[in-house]
Amino acid sequence: MRRTVFFVSDQTGVTAETLGHSLLTQFEGHEFDLVTLPFLDTVDKVDAALVQIRDRAAEQGVPPIIFSTLVQDDLRLRFTPDVGLLIDFFDTYLPPLEHELRSKSSHIAGRAHGVNNAGRYDQRIGATNFALNNDDGARVDEYDKADLILVGVSRSGKTPTCLYLALSYGVYAANYPLSEDELESGRLPRAVQEYRHKLYGLTIEPERLQQIRRERRAVGSYATMPQVSFELRAAEAMYERYRIPYIDATQKSIEELASTILLNTGVERRIRP
Amino acid sequence: MRRTVFFVSDQTGVTAETLGHSLLTQFEGHEFDLVTLPFLDTVDKVDAALVQIRDRAAEQGVPPIIFSTLVQDDLRLRFTPDVGLLIDFFDTYLPPLEHELRSKSSHIAGRAHGVNNAGRYDQRIGATNFALNNDDGARVDEYDKADLILVGVSRSGKTPTCLYLALSYGVYAANYPLSEDELESGRLPRAVQEYRHKLYGLTIEPERLQQIRRERRAVGSYATMPQVSFELRAAEAMYERYRIPYIDATQKSIEELASTILLNTGVERRIRP
Repeated sequence: MRRTVFFVSDQTGVTAETLGHSLLTQFEGHEFDLVTLPFLDTVDKVDAALVQIRDRAAEQGVPPIIFSTLVQDDLRLRFTPDVGLLIDFFDTYLPPLEHELRSKSSHIAGRAHGVNNAGRYDQRIGATNFALNNDDGARVDEYDKADLILVGVSRSGKTPTCLYLALSYGVYAANYPLSEDELESGRLPRAVQEYRHKLYGLTIEPERLQQIRRERRAVGSYATMPQVSFELRAAEAMYERYRIPYIDATQKSIEELASTILLNTGVERRIRP
Repeated sequence: MRRTVFFVSDQTGVTAETLGHSLLTQFEGHEFDLVTLPFLDTVDKVDAALVQIRDRAAEQGVPPIIFSTLVQDDLRLRFTPDVGLLIDFFDTYLPPLEHELRSKSSHIAGRAHGVNNAGRYDQRIGATNFALNNDDGARVDEYDKADLILVGVSRSGKTPTCLYLALSYGVYAANYPLSEDELESGRLPRAVQEYRHKLYGLTIEPERLQQIRRERRAVGSYATMPQVSFELRAAEAMYERYRIPYIDATQKSIEELASTILLNTGVERRIRP
């Protein structure tokens, strides 16, 4: 029995999706069809969404679940689906917050994931450009500007973690790959020696790294178990020797890696979600 | 009067931050100090958080607002701050969902932003690598694999939008910069001609583009108003001539650009938040 879940918003739908997804992951054994209806910012669009929801429910024969972050009152009050469970985020929580803050809320759309101000945009772009320019040791002369420098062997997850740190938190994160020579010598690479306090290591289980590397390049020793095991052992030994904090990426999502690194290093977010 | 806002989670805190931030943006004229307390996954950590919240409230003399996505029952039930407004998302919404779905929820942490499965991770990494390899026209021989190809003048927002599409939605997004020669000729660049149906244009107001370019390179004509205006006019004329859908990035966040492009193109998300 499949059930349709609608994420309804007068803006991007990111908040409605985040809320709904967090809740739905708590229910196992159900199959959901996920439909996002973003930018419902006129009465006509809201009415069309109501028709779409009603038609889908009739077709499927199962009442849908609807997560709404409509906030403008004229739209929110008009959005009254005649089937399904409606979870209206602002309707639930604005009243207690208004009471606590002794203020009326603005009920104006587009604040959560809007551009807000050029400053926030510039922070993200600056951090993203920094991550791109300082990816994979491409340059090593800007580490004084880095909030942190991830180190690890090839394909241990450095690049996506740096990009996520930049886009989500505006953090300036560089990354430096540990080469075979450096791993063999066991000495901290010259390029990062001066910035030891900014280093954070990644490691990963050999089986998983082998799997990731195979998809990239199956030939040569790159994805063989002896090579992968050697590199990981040597990297971890280097982290221990130089007391570089590190994290095992195997069972972690990019969000978890980024959050953990911020928590453990104390690096401050420059922007908020 | 500043007030502290806590985001409390037994996982990354991303959901608590996103939801809390959406609500707080509805209140103007308040100053908030934002504190994220992630990975509270033991009774001891929950107790330490309670002390931290109490101490902060005493110090500040203002009751805090606390957004919690604690989900494991032993932690959630223990987390009873004696000051402030507690907004407990799972406590609010799991009961009506359990009723509607006629199932008990699992109350297991770590599902929303956990790695879930290697497949989801691989999708994100694949899409991110694709965005990096196909950034700024770096290569043009993989466009058959692209879900979409952003086009636009230098610094119109192509790269961060592609990276966001990759990390958040697993979408394969390439981007191709419109060069001065191509803009002068007014003809669609050869490299993308075959993929016209995948193209999506970005534009931006000249004043904003000038400001962004100045920060990058102040010398030469790159950031001058005549140059910026010419490029933008020519790009928009090209979009119109070839019926390429396009969007003005000036007032939009990266989330808004990404959501709008997905909505307008019908490109399917490969992953969900």
